[in-house]
Parts: sequence; structure tokens; C-alpha cells
Amino acid sequence: MKTFNQPLGGNEMARFGGPATMMRLPAVTSAEGLDVAFIGIPMDHGTSNRSGTRLGPRQIRDESRMLRPYNMATGAAPFDHLQVADLGDVPINTFDLKKTVDIITDHYRKVLAEDVVPLTLGGDHTLTWPILRAMKEKYGPVALIHIDAHADINEHMFGETVAHGCPFRRAWEDECLINDKVFQIGLRGTGYAADDFDWARGQGWTVVQAEECWGKSLVRLMEIVRARIGEKPVYISYDIDSLDPAFAPGTGTVEPGGLSTWQALEIIRGCAGLNIVGGDLVEVSPPYDPTGNTALIGANILYEMLCVLPGVPQRPSRFSGLTF
Amino acid sequence: MKTFNQPLGGNEMARFGGPATMMRLPAVTSAEGLDVAFIGIPMDHGTSNRSGTRLGPRQIRDESRMLRPYNMATGAAPFDHLQVADLGDVPINTFDLKKTVDIITDHYRKVLAEDVVPLTLGGDHTLTWPILRAMKEKYGPVALIHIDAHADINEHMFGETVAHGCPFRRAWEDECLINDKVFQIGLRGTGYAADDFDWARGQGWTVVQAEECWGKSLVRLMEIVRARIGEKPVYISYDIDSLDPAFAPGTGTVEPGGLSTWQALEIIRGCAGLNIVGGDLVEVSPPYDPTGNTALIGANILYEMLCVLPGVPQRPSRFSGLTF
Amino acid sequence: MKTFNQPLGGNEMARFGGPATMMRLPAVTSAEGLDVAFIGIPMDHGTSNRSGTRLGPRQIRDESRMLRPYNMATGAAPFDHLQVADLGDVPINTFDLKKTVDIITDHYRKVLAEDVVPLTLGGDHTLTWPILRAMKEKYGPVALIHIDAHADINEHMFGETVAHGCPFRRAWEDECLINDKVFQIGLRGTGYAADDFDWARGQGWTVVQAEECWGKSLVRLMEIVRARIGEKPVYISYDIDSLDPAFAPGTGTVEPGGLSTWQALEIIRGCAGLNIVGGDLVEVSPPYDPTGNTALIGANILYEMLCVLPGVPQRPSRFSGLTF
Amino acid sequence: MKTFNQPLGGNEMARFGGPATMMRLPAVTSAEGLDVAFIGIPMDHGTSNRSGTRLGPRQIRDESRMLRPYNMATGAAPFDHLQVADLGDVPINTFDLKKTVDIITDHYRKVLAEDVVPLTLGGDHTLTWPILRAMKEKYGPVALIHIDAHADINEHMFGETVAHGCPFRRAWEDECLINDKVFQIGLRGTGYAADDFDWARGQGWTVVQAEECWGKSLVRLMEIVRARIGEKPVYISYDIDSLDPAFAPGTGTVEPGGLSTWQALEIIRGCAGLNIVGGDLVEVSPPYDPTGNTALIGANILYEMLCVLPGVPQRPSRFSGLTF
Amino acid sequence: MKTFNQPLGGNEMARFGGPATMMRLPAVTSAEGLDVAFIGIPMDHGTSNRSGTRLGPRQIRDESRMLRPYNMATGAAPFDHLQVADLGDVPINTFDLKKTVDIITDHYRKVLAEDVVPLTLGGDHTLTWPILRAMKEKYGPVALIHIDAHADINEHMFGETVAHGCPFRRAWEDECLINDKVFQIGLRGTGYAADDFDWARGQGWTVVQAEECWGKSLVRLMEIVRARIGEKPVYISYDIDSLDPAFAPGTGTVEPGGLSTWQALEIIRGCAGLNIVGGDLVEVSPPYDPTGNTALIGANILYEMLCVLPGVPQRPSRFSGLTF
Amino acid sequence: MKTFNQPLGGNEMARFGGPATMMRLPAVTSAEGLDVAFIGIPMDHGTSNRSGTRLGPRQIRDESRMLRPYNMATGAAPFDHLQVADLGDVPINTFDLKKTVDIITDHYRKVLAEDVVPLTLGGDHTLTWPILRAMKEKYGPVALIHIDAHADINEHMFGETVAHGCPFRRAWEDECLINDKVFQIGLRGTGYAADDFDWARGQGWTVVQAEECWGKSLVRLMEIVRARIGEKPVYISYDIDSLDPAFAPGTGTVEPGGLSTWQALEIIRGCAGLNIVGGDLVEVSPPYDPTGNTALIGANILYEMLCVLPGVPQRPSRFSGLTF
Repeated sequence: MKTFNQPLGGNEMARFGGPATMMRLPAVTSAEGLDVAFIGIPMDHGTSNRSGTRLGPRQIRDESRMLRPYNMATGAAPFDHLQVADLGDVPINTFDLKKTVDIITDHYRKVLAEDVVPLTLGGDHTLTWPILRAMKEKYGPVALIHIDAHADINEHMFGETVAHGCPFRRAWEDECLINDKVFQIGLRGTGYAADDFDWARGQGWTVVQAEECWGKSLVRLMEIVRARIGEKPVYISYDIDSLDPAFAPGTGTVEPGGLSTWQALEIIRGCAGLNIVGGDLVEVSPPYDPTGNTALIGANILYEMLCVLPGVPQRPSRFSGLTF
Repeated sequence: MKTFNQPLGGNEMARFGGPATMMRLPAVTSAEGLDVAFIGIPMDHGTSNRSGTRLGPRQIRDESRMLRPYNMATGAAPFDHLQVADLGDVPINTFDLKKTVDIITDHYRKVLAEDVVPLTLGGDHTLTWPILRAMKEKYGPVALIHIDAHADINEHMFGETVAHGCPFRRAWEDECLINDKVFQIGLRGTGYAADDFDWARGQGWTVVQAEECWGKSLVRLMEIVRARIGEKPVYISYDIDSLDPAFAPGTGTVEPGGLSTWQALEIIRGCAGLNIVGGDLVEVSPPYDPTGNTALIGANILYEMLCVLPGVPQRPSRFSGLTF
Repeated sequence: MKTFNQPLGGNEMARFGGPATMMRLPAVTSAEGLDVAFIGIPMDHGTSNRSGTRLGPRQIRDESRMLRPYNMATGAAPFDHLQVADLGDVPINTFDLKKTVDIITDHYRKVLAEDVVPLTLGGDHTLTWPILRAMKEKYGPVALIHIDAHADINEHMFGETVAHGCPFRRAWEDECLINDKVFQIGLRGTGYAADDFDWARGQGWTVVQAEECWGKSLVRLMEIVRARIGEKPVYISYDIDSLDPAFAPGTGTVEPGGLSTWQALEIIRGCAGLNIVGGDLVEVSPPYDPTGNTALIGANILYEMLCVLPGVPQRPSRFSGLTF
Repeated sequence: MKTFNQPLGGNEMARFGGPATMMRLPAVTSAEGLDVAFIGIPMDHGTSNRSGTRLGPRQIRDESRMLRPYNMATGAAPFDHLQVADLGDVPINTFDLKKTVDIITDHYRKVLAEDVVPLTLGGDHTLTWPILRAMKEKYGPVALIHIDAHADINEHMFGETVAHGCPFRRAWEDECLINDKVFQIGLRGTGYAADDFDWARGQGWTVVQAEECWGKSLVRLMEIVRARIGEKPVYISYDIDSLDPAFAPGTGTVEPGGLSTWQALEIIRGCAGLNIVGGDLVEVSPPYDPTGNTALIGANILYEMLCVLPGVPQRPSRFSGLTF
Repeated sequence: MKTFNQPLGGNEMARFGGPATMMRLPAVTSAEGLDVAFIGIPMDHGTSNRSGTRLGPRQIRDESRMLRPYNMATGAAPFDHLQVADLGDVPINTFDLKKTVDIITDHYRKVLAEDVVPLTLGGDHTLTWPILRAMKEKYGPVALIHIDAHADINEHMFGETVAHGCPFRRAWEDECLINDKVFQIGLRGTGYAADDFDWARGQGWTVVQAEECWGKSLVRLMEIVRARIGEKPVYISYDIDSLDPAFAPGTGTVEPGGLSTWQALEIIRGCAGLNIVGGDLVEVSPPYDPTGNTALIGANILYEMLCVLPGVPQRPSRFSGLTF
Repeated sequence: MKTFNQPLGGNEMARFGGPATMMRLPAVTSAEGLDVAFIGIPMDHGTSNRSGTRLGPRQIRDESRMLRPYNMATGAAPFDHLQVADLGDVPINTFDLKKTVDIITDHYRKVLAEDVVPLTLGGDHTLTWPILRAMKEKYGPVALIHIDAHADINEHMFGETVAHGCPFRRAWEDECLINDKVFQIGLRGTGYAADDFDWARGQGWTVVQAEECWGKSLVRLMEIVRARIGEKPVYISYDIDSLDPAFAPGTGTVEPGGLSTWQALEIIRGCAGLNIVGGDLVEVSPPYDPTGNTALIGANILYEMLCVLPGVPQRPSRFSGLTF
């Protein structure tokens, strides 16, 4: 019987010790034999306001030390069913953003030569485009669940086509996406034109602005999303700034009026049953949250993605039975 | 055709550069020709617990660099319709609070000699009283929408009548307010007597305690407020501590159990249609939020006030159409 | 007529001055004559992830300086009805956790020789077990309202039975609890087994996971809790990490998706009418919230406990009467 | 035989617990019977740049918990020879600076009715003037050792005569000082005129700019100072911003190129033998040093003042005997 | 008689208010008529470890508000002799480092068309190369005084020639420097080869490692430097990381064992008499010093450069005359 | 020819990426084949004031990413001569300090079964005693160079013999030390008796108080130390609080008036030529220095220890030749 890697437990090594890998999993140098690979992309040269996301992967890994193997809400036990490891970082070129996107695509092309789901620790949001290019090579166009404060569909920024505000425009140009199965959740804030988000709608994408989500459970929204996506391969791109800055202060392009962590968890847990082929968690900027809590939330979101991957059973919730 | 000042855009100058004026608008020295003037009042000698609000205007301006011209939720395009600029700071006397309130009234009297709406960056809440005095000279008594954790209606504090806990008592004494059109939203916490808020109710003011708002949309509340105020000139005073400290940690007199940024945005957006003649955003204390996020939220609230001023059209929201 | 200790008021001494006792109450060295004693237990050697809670009592006291005597939501006026003071700290042994738990029990045994309700400022959650041992000696088994992100029912941690993840298992072993009157609210996160919380359920305890609470008022839940507990003596143990880290960043074992301060206040206020015999507020870790806001929220929760103690009348809420 | 108050020791109560009084000494409400009184003046309305010193006394007391009774460098054992206690805070009027200076003088007049040396925890530097007024009433004009980055001899600031840049001008006007026995050490930075410091020299004061001190021991300087002052009563006013911001980041009017803590200790220890009648430590601004280290250094400097008071023997240093 | 721009004084506007320009000087859009222009280059895409220097110019300007016009140590009165203003920021391309260096050279070429000395607020050290290219066009090769922890003479970093570790290698290649008049002061730390610094020595540059400076006055060193440079035009490049991190924590590539602020001031003041044609202060990274003290020191160093420009008289120091 | 492990270079992986091991060296699970092993001991239950050192090893490793292989001051090239790796952490028992010391001794006994020099990343100072026990088993008593603010020779603390203030008393009892070859450098502050340090002197230890070091080079001191130690095996224990808090704010028991980083480097570099058998760097407390600079200095000190190990040649310094 196959045994799977397990996170180093708190009863073997106090949580504040041990390797600073994702969830204190083994560090590996090849995706061979893995079902899931955590990969870091330490970069911030795509950011347009505050920087610092280059240190996101390190802090997410550091704070992920608190994660225990079992999901108490969903019963998911990912390490009973999947071979998971930390595949280290992509050696990006920090002085050249355009070269970096090609380095990322090349890197993921090699990773995807194995039958592995990459879960990426960002890094700024520029990185999703080169990952999606590699995804397309393997899967063809994919469905997309994109949670963010921003649409990230700019034609260009400061005249440049490669920047953290452009990845989904580029991915669209490269035909990486199944347009009627693209969902953008949490968008808000200010824009360069009143109809900024309409470009996305014009492509057939579904845009759920933050205001639509305020004060609501998103369980039903995710039912709709699942129904629309069906069996298609789907990629999840989670920008931590989708959360209200109350929940995720440590990021660079802050917009008030965002999602709560309750909603974030509902979104990811609501992806169970989908054919998820990859995911990322981007825009954690450690200098803007020295407590590490934003990174810790990022680590939890990546863990929740792991818990809804194909092959991980969910058990019915066991709630109190009280009616209130 | 008249052209209006525009915020310096991110495609002309990276957001982390350019002038540290409000929204990177032009700095001007006179209100002449303006429809709206952002004015800073850097002061904290009216504070009773933590200080630091003297640096509020600087940090709010700094963090306002992220604001783009269009409101993605309401479609408001204030810079298409209004001449807006940064009119700099009031030269307050930091060693004498009583002189400072007179300096402020004098300053606003001059500003209001022009047909301009002042939007004020505080500074502690003491400043609203001297502004309201100048407002009254121009408009007579005004309606008031006051969002705050505290009623700020103390007869005195430590025997003094000028302090950040007293401005609305002073404004009432000076007959600056239309008593049946005063709304205080978000009040909570502890008091010197169980009936502290009843004085306000006794004057005919409407007090909506935070507890009444918990977990609710405030869209309907604002409908009521608008109906009651009608055509009267109205002043908006937004104390950042109305927000729960989760949302606005950087302030001096913190009370848990406050409003969310969702509710804050609902309140300001719900002012559209009113005859707003001025507004302020007070009590941001930078030393208590080094990330700048509290100031950034303050900048957004001021921007939202700008978006609901008379003369700025609102377009219907364009939501997803999904039912969830 | 008996006069009661009053918190030093802001009109006698500016809030940032005066003694750094709880609510600036008198410091006393004996519980004699008191109805309620605030007691600090400065310790963090029971923590398993981040430490720092040893400084919790100092920071909670410091930030409690903002608390005024009257509860504006409930009308409670505890200092009109109860003799309250700050009884100082338990002299724990910071180099030996096992000795510390005995020191605590001994200390509370002496305190409870008087007819006093101890409200404890933690400190890590290990401390609740030794307090409950002393409680049992006086009252027999007690009902428990335990608000937390974690069940704290581990058989052991790293092979040890004394740790901040074990106090309620130990209290159960010592028969300190009335099992059908134990309520755990806010539990969530990851665990060592998918059925970690089922052990509690197996003892007859009621477990209300955080997910059940999301987006809801907890007023009705507390009605149920009150009905079940009835007249029994009840102990309240409030772990600050029950709150989402947005609301309480300054703690050591952070789990996203937690309660809001709105819900926290509903829970404590919902205890009015119960026969509360003690309470604690634990796991505030000052180094992880230099603003002091987490401690300030902790101070407020302790104050709210004071406001619902037997003998403190509640008055009906006076709300706006608006329907929204 | 008289027994003296002792700081609560670390073997009786862990250092992070116990009362947050100065050095965990007893809190008293009267100076009667004391040789030395630690007094806090929580104020910052005299500051001209950053505020926050209102919380200085609280943080200095908090961090003073590390101080043990014996001075390892000088052998001083102040608690073997002096009755010392914490006399609490002056109830300043935080909304009126001019009233505050009179409150301070009144307060110290009463304190000085006893034969006690006040050691003051600031608070901004405005406070030294009203203390010196009270000192003069008891002692006549006093010698002054003033360690600071700034001369604090402004005729006025913003037209006001009461501010933290003016106390020694005011004290001079009030003839509180023996002009040929005034020493200002550490002055530097920028000024309103090239001869700003010359006013002081013109009164016969000795100005030792920071540049004169760079890289030097100040032991010999203090010999000169002692010789000049002789038997006269002397007051020590230590502004924490005399230190380079490397050593004392937590202050409001920062000037680089300052003294080191080595030099600060040499200065205070070099006061041994003088007839010290009072001292203060001012301008610690907690919000600008969340670690508490600046306050901790302030607490140490106050302790060192205690160690050189009349009646505290010094023993010869016991050094290694190595020549290097 | 010509009148010069003056910094906005503290008696006209409290220091925490007023425009956030350098020293609260007027903001101008052209160098015409200026003797000295402060220019910001907000960039960090040349950094190799921590980022954040993109916000350096904003924070340096903000903290420069404390600077008064006169230099108390040297008697320099720059605003009596020079027309100085804040020329704003260079509109760098934050997504393309290579384009940015050309933008900078173009920008400075235009500035230098006027007879103005540019003093630059960085930004990362990459910026010095493109400035030196523009300098060479005007002046031919220049002497260089380069104060830094690092030699910044790498052939390449990660294969790239444009990065903050390479500017002086590039400037050398472009023949911007007079090799026997290049001084590098403060170098230290670890390297890729034991002879990293020998390349510089091989070009005839003088390398003064930090170890040579420890515990010494640098007055005599600067005499040597001045003698060697003579009348040649000289550029000063001051990297804040030349300072020990005790003095300048807010930077990205920290090396312990650095210079003190005493030495920094000696170096800049020791440049008086040289034919200074430009200068920069680089590598202040605000996210790593939320107090702003590192930026404040940077602002002071830029002010000291202003004080030693040709045309600004120095007066003899007026010291105490005491021998110690 | 044997090839040695090399730190992952900045040209292969940007410094902010790659594994968070010490200097980005390979992580290994056995000391076999190593000359030097970096070992973490994540603990803080021996601390008496502020905690947080449990996270020291993680932050030291994180910040060590900046370290390049060559020592620019001494020419040392440790990775050309020694096989070095990161051996991970000791699995301490965070709930039982007494068990932890035995775990440490057992762990080091196994490590020392190989011919390896352990360089330890602390963790609080308690850890040196159990390491010295293991050292003694291999080498017999050793010479000791102990750099610290505190003597750490308490008979007990709060009645306990195991605490961070006692390790050298315990090591002395266990005859781990060659008494006439024990050097304590940097001691200062306050004590429980005026003769606290005399106990050490009484055992023949050499105590060099901080005051003796102020303003001096320690090069000559280290010559004396080397001469006295001769060929004996020597252990170096470096407590980061030996440094003045200006240089190392991130620690728990702060004493002003400490060493500079210049002196720290002189001390470690002055150990070259000694028969060093082990070393540690303790008391870095990350929560008290969120910039990471204290940890970075700690990492540098550990690197400097590596550079002076037997087998690493030193080359003569190549200085400027200027006389100043």
C-alpha cells in the first residue's frame, strides 16, 4: 500500500521549528511521483503600488507551520489520498519581468510533464499568465475561478503588456481560457473608466462584484459556478486582495469593501467536485503584515485548495443541530 | 468646453511617485474656480486617549495615490463633472486648541466665500465644530449625517468645552444643526452614564447604535435618512472609529463591535441625491497603522463623498444577474 | 449606604495617565470584601506556536484605560452594584509549567475562600484547567461556555498533558464540568484527525463550529444556551482566537474564518441571567499586535462579562425605532 | 533600623507580571516619608513634530520591570539608602497646555513641601519649566545639566511661549537657573538662524554640541561640570532625543548625529557627588518604538539618576585588569 | 536683490502639515532658474534582496519636514545663497528596468541643460549609472565619492547588467569616472570572491573598507579626498546602507559593521570646498522602517549635501572651549 | 578532489527565494561527513522577561539568505575548505524545560559522535549548558568565550536551576569549563547584588564589563584571550544582547550601554587561530524586530564563527593605505 508524505507534526517537532517548507512537507526537486506540488514564485516586479510580494512564498511557507492534516469543516484528509510535496521556487529573473514570464512558463511546462497539480505561492499576479500558458499546452483552454479585488484585464500598464494588472487579458489573447466558464469574484474599487469590467463581460465572463457579495453566503454562488463549469479542467487564481484589508492587510493594492475570510472559505470549499488542475495564491506582501497573519491566511487558502482536489473525499459537515 | 483637473494617472507616473497631494490632484492656494476643495487639518490636541491624528492628512494624501478616477460600483465619474483640487492644510496652532478652532472657522469662512464644497482630511474630531460654524454662516443650520463610535456630545471633558468629544454639543449650542435632520450612526461602547446618548435623542436627533446595524445592509436606512433630509443642505462627518477596529485599526479611541467597510460604503453611497455642502473624515492616527491601510480607507471614504456630490451622475449598478 | 470602587475617570486623570490597573480600578492585595476580582495570570509556557501571552495581562490592563463605567448597549452599570478591584497577578513559575498549574489552583482556592467572582486576564489557555479545579472545590462541577477556535481537548501535546491545547480534557478528567452543559463555540481550522471534535460531542458537550455561526446573529443561540444551563453555576472561558484574526490579530494560534466582535458581544451579553461564577479572557499576545487593539478588545470582553454578572440589572435597549 | 521599599524582585513575581509601577515599587499617594518620588507627567501637547509622549510614563514604567536593585558598574545600591516610591501621575489638562503648566507647578510645589527628590517620567519637554518654577521656590535658582539635541530656548513657537521648544527660555526669564552653572550637552541639527545656540552662550551657559562629543568619552567633561557646579543644587533634564536615533528611535523630533548610550551613562554617572535636587527624562514617544526599547533606556537613565543621588555611595569599579 | 525660496517654516505651518515636498520647499516643474533641484526617482526593480525603495522619495520628503534652514554645526545657510526647489519625480517605467535607466538619463539630460545641481532622492542604486551618463555629457568624466556597504561593481547579476549591484561598473565602462579620483567608503560584508573589491583597486579607485573606519573620525580622510580631487567636478553617491543597520534599519541589503551617523556627517561636511555637481541618497526602504527615522536621516544627508555646495559659505565651528 | 557544499548563489536563485535553510545550504539529516553543522534549537521557555526566541532559528535562517561565501574583511573562504550543511532543529519539548535540556544533550552527543563543529542557532541561553555537557563528554572541559550583557551564573531563578540566567553556573557545576580560560565580555546592567559578577571572578574567570570596552577596539583584548587559551578546545557563546539594543533591538532582556557590531566582529574575528569546537548565537527574538535585522546580524555572527574555524585560512587585510 502506498504511503504518502505527511506534514511534520507538532508532536514530533514544535510548530515553531522544523523545515520552513510548505506545511513542513518534504522538499523535493522533481515533480515525479507527486500528485500535488507546492511551488513558490518569489517576485514583485509586476506590482504597481506597494511591492514586497517577492517575500510572499517564504512567509507563506513559514506561517503554514500551523496547518494540521485534517480539515475540521469538510472532513477532507488530503494526505491520506494524495502525494504532496514542496517543489521549491522558480528561479525568476528579478531584473527583467519579461524574461521572468518565460522562465515561469518553461518551469511549469516541465512540472506539468508529470501528472501533477501545481499549487503556486506568489508572488505578484503577473505569474498567473505564464502558468496558464503552460496549462493550455497540457489541457487546452481551461475554466477559471478568479477571486480578486481587480479584474487584471488591462490592455497595458504604463505602456507595458506584462504587469500584475494584465495577466487575464494576456491569457485571453493566448486563448488559455474557456470564456463562458470564467468567473471573477470580488471585483471593486476605482477604475480608469466606468466600464472597465465590461470588457470581461463582453467576452462572456461572469463578473461578480464585491458589492453583490456583501453580507451573503456564497455557497449558492458556488453551486452555480460548479454547474456552469461541469467537467472542464479549472484553474483557481486567488488574489489575497480580494479579501477586505481587515482580513488581509499585507498586500500592495488595497481596496476596501472586500470579501471576508468566511466567504473565501466558502468559495474554495465550493470548488469541491470540480476538475481542478491548478491554483495559485498571490499578492501576499510580508512587509505590510509583520504579524504574518496575511501569509497564514494565504497558507490556509492553499490548504483548502488541496482539500478540494479530485481524489479527496468530503464528508458531510457535523454541526450542532441547534437551530439559531 | 471646460476641462477639469484630473488625478495624475498611473500610466503617467507610477503610483508610488508623483506629488503627495490628495489623489495626486493639483495643489492650489485658492478655492477660486473650484467646485470641491480637499483641505487638511493636521491636529491632535483635541484627542483624549491616543494621539497621532496630526499626521492624518499627510498619510491620507499619501495613500490616496491608489485612487483612480471612476467608481466601479456606482459609475460615478466625479472628475468629468467637477473641478477638484487639493487646497492644502489649515495652519492650526498646535500649542493652543482654543485658538485653533477659531483659526479653522476663519479659514473655512474664506474658503466658503467661493462656491465650493470642502472635503476635510482630519485631524481629530474637534475640527467639525469650527467648520460647522462657518457652514452655518453660509447656509444657516444644516442637516448632519454623523458616523462615529461616539456621540461627541459631551458638555465638557476635563472641564473643557473644546475637545474631540464635544463638537456636536458645541455645534448644537451654536444652532448650526437642524435638529430633526441629525443622524448619528454607529454609536456604541461605554459611557459616563447609561443615558449618555439620550441627550441627543432629546434634541430630536436620530441615534442608530452600532448594535442596530450588526449584520445588516444599511441601504434601507439611508433611504430613510434621505427622505427625512430632503432638499436641506447636509454635512457629512465621518469618524473612522465608527468602523470596527478590524477595519480601521489606526485610530485613537477604539471601540469594538463597529461598522464594516461594507456598511461605510453603503452609508456614503446612500447619500447620493442629497444636497451635500461639506464633509470630513477624521481621527485617522498613522502611528497606530504603519501599513497605511486605515488612511487608505479614509481616502476611499473621502473619494466616495466626492462621488455623491450634487452634479455627479450615478449609473445603475451592473451586476452579474446571478441569484445567490 | 455602601459605596463601590469606581474606575478612575477621564475627567480626573487623562486616560493615558493614572495607574495601569484594570480599568484604573484600585489595586488590592486581598479579595476580602470584593464581589469581583480581576486577576492576571502572566504566562505563555503552555503555548505551542507563537508565544508572548505572558505580557497579555499587562497590555490588557493598559488598554482597559478607555473603558468608562456604563454599558451603552445594555444599560448595565456594574460599578453601581458590585465591589470590583484589581487583585494583581498570580506569581507563576515561568520555568516550570507543571508547577505553575498548581500555583494557580492554590491561588484561586484562596481567592474563592471569599465570595468573589474571579475574572482572569490571561495568559495562555492552560490556565483554565487549574482555575476550574479550584472552582469545582467550591461549586462542584460547573457549566461551561467556551468560546475558542480550538477545542483544547487534546489527550496530550508532545507527550505532555499540561499545555494550552489540553485544559478541557484535564478539567473533564477531574470532573470539573457538567457535561450536558458544556458549550464550545467558534471551533474551526485543521486537526490531527477528522473527528477531533467528536470526542467532545461524545461526552455530551455541544460543539458549535464557526462555520455554523458565519453571517448569523448569535442571540438565538444564547437563548438556547441559557435555557439548557438554567440555574447552574457557569464559567465562561473566552479565547481571543475565537475571533477571526481580522478582529484579533494579536494571538498565537491563528485560524481564519472566525467570529466577529459583533458575535463576541452577542455571546457575552447573551449570558445575562446566568449564574456566572467566573470567567477568563486568554491568549492575547502583545508582540503580535503592537497597536494594543487586540488587548483592548480583550479588555472590553472582560468588561462585558462584568456587566452580566448576577446582581447587575440590564435595561431594555433603546434603539432608533427605524425599520431597516 | 529603617527598612526601605524594594522593587518587586524577579524571584517573587516573573518580570512580565506584577504592578506596572516604576521598577515595580509601591504606588503611593503622598510624598510623605519619601526620599525620592518617581512622578509621571503624561502629556504631548507641547510637541511640535510627532506626538505620542503622552504615553511615555506608562511605557517607561512598563519596561522598568527589568531593572534590578544594584548597579553593576558603580556599585550603587539606592534601595539600601533611600526610601523610593512611585507617586503616580500629574493630572494634566490635555486640552489646555497653558493650564497644564500651572497644574504641574502646583503639583510639584506640594511634592516639594516634603524633603523629596522628584524624578519625573515625561511627557514632552514643556514640563521642565513648571517643575523648575517649583524648584526655585524651594531652592532658589539651580544649576542645570541639560542633555538634549535641541537647546529648547526659543522665544516662542508659532507665536506661543509655552511649547516643548521653549522651557529653558521661560525658566531663564523666571530666574530659575544659575546661569554660569547651566550645561547643555548634545545639541545639534538644524536651526532657524546660524546663531541659535549663541543666545544660550550669551547668558553664560555652556553649550557642548554633539559634534564635540563624537567618538569621545565624556568622563572628563563631567569632571569639569562637577567642578563648576560645586555644592549648588542641580537639576538634571534628560531629553531622550539627545541620543542618536539609533539608540532611541522612539521620540518625536529626531536629529541624527547624537550621543550614544555609553555617553549617556557617562553623563549621569558623572553626576555622582553633585547635590542633585531633581531630574527628568522626557520625550519618549511609545508609538514610534513598539519594541519598548526606547522606554527601557529611559527607565535605565532614570535609575542611573537614582544611583547618583546624595546619600547613595559609589564603590570603585572592579574591572578586569587587562590592558587593551 | 534676488530672494530665494525658503522652506515653509514651523511658525507658519506646524511641521506635521504643509506640502510633502522636500523640506516643504516649492514644487516646480522646470529646473529653470534653480541652482539646486531635489529630484525623486521612485524605483526598486533594481534591488536584489528586500524591495521597497520605490517609496523612498515619498518618505524622505515626508520626514524632511523637520529640517530647518540653518546648519548648526557648520553655519551653512544654503537658502541665503541658492535657489532651491523640489522638481518632483522621474516617471520611471516600473515594469521595465532597462527602459527606466534610459528614462532617467533623458530626464537628467534635460535638467542639466540648466545650470543646476541635481540632488536625487532614491530609489535603488541602479539610478546612479544613468545619472552619471547625463553628468558625463555635461561635465566629462567626474570624480566620485561613493559611500556604501557594497562596491556595486558587479559585471552582472543573474546575468543582467542593469541592477543595483552594477552601477559603477557600467559607469566605468561608459567612462563617466575619473578613475584616480574615485573613492569608495564603507565597503564590507560578504562577497562572491575574496578579491571582489580588488577590481576597483585595479582601476585606480581608492577603497576604504568599513573596518578601516571603525572607531575613527573621518575628518582627516576627507582632507585626503579633497586634496586628491582638487577642482574636478565631483559627484556624491550616498547609499544609506553604508550606515550600520543600527543607524539605518530601513534598507534592503543590510550589512552589519557599518558607519555611524557621526561618520556620515563628517564625510559630507568634509566635501565642503569641492566642486560638487550632483549627489544622490539611495536605498531607503520605508517598509523596513515604519518610524521614518531612516528616511529622516536620508533627508538630513541630502540637506548636508546642499550645505556644502559651491557658493554656500561655511563658518568656523563655535564649540565650548572645554578640553575633554 | 573533494567538492564542498556551497550556499545557493544569488545568480542561481534570487536571494528572496530558495530554501530557508542557513545560508541556503543543503538540509541534511545526519552529521556524517560534515565538518560543520548548523543546528537550530527553537526554544524560549528559559526566558525571564520577553519571550519569542523560539522563532529565532527560523528568522536567522531566513535572513541568512544575504550571506555570500567570501569574507571581504578577512579573506576567509569557509566553503573552499569545510563541508558545511544545515542539520535542522532539535525537537525540544516546549512544555517542559527540564526535559528539553536533556533532549539537547542527547542530540548533541549524537552529533558529536561525528567529527563535526556544531554552530547553534538559538533559542534562549538555557541551551548552552546542555550543549556544554555534550562537549565535555567529547573534549573534557573547554575554554569559553562568552559574550553577553549578563553573566548567566545565577544559582537559581525563581527557585529553579534551569533557566536562561543559569547556564554557566550549571556548566561550572558539571565541570564543563576550564576556569582560567573562561572569558565573559560585555557584562553590564543591574543585578541582585553589587557583587553578582564577583562569583565568576572568584572561579578564576575573566570578566570584561561593557564599560571597559566602550569606545575601544577589542583587537588587543582578543590577542590576550588567544594567548591565554592557547591550544585548548574552546567554545564560543554569543548572546545577541551583548550588543547595545541600538544594534540588536530584537531580544528579550535588553540592557543599554552594550557593545557595537564593530566590536562583535572584532571579537569573533579575533578568535581565528583558536581550536574552536563549537559555538552558538542565542537570544534573537523575532517579535521584537520585525525588520529581521537582529536575526540578520545573528546570521552574520554565525558566519563569522564559521570563518575562523580551524582549517579556514585568513589572508592579510587589504586596506587603503591611507593614514587617517
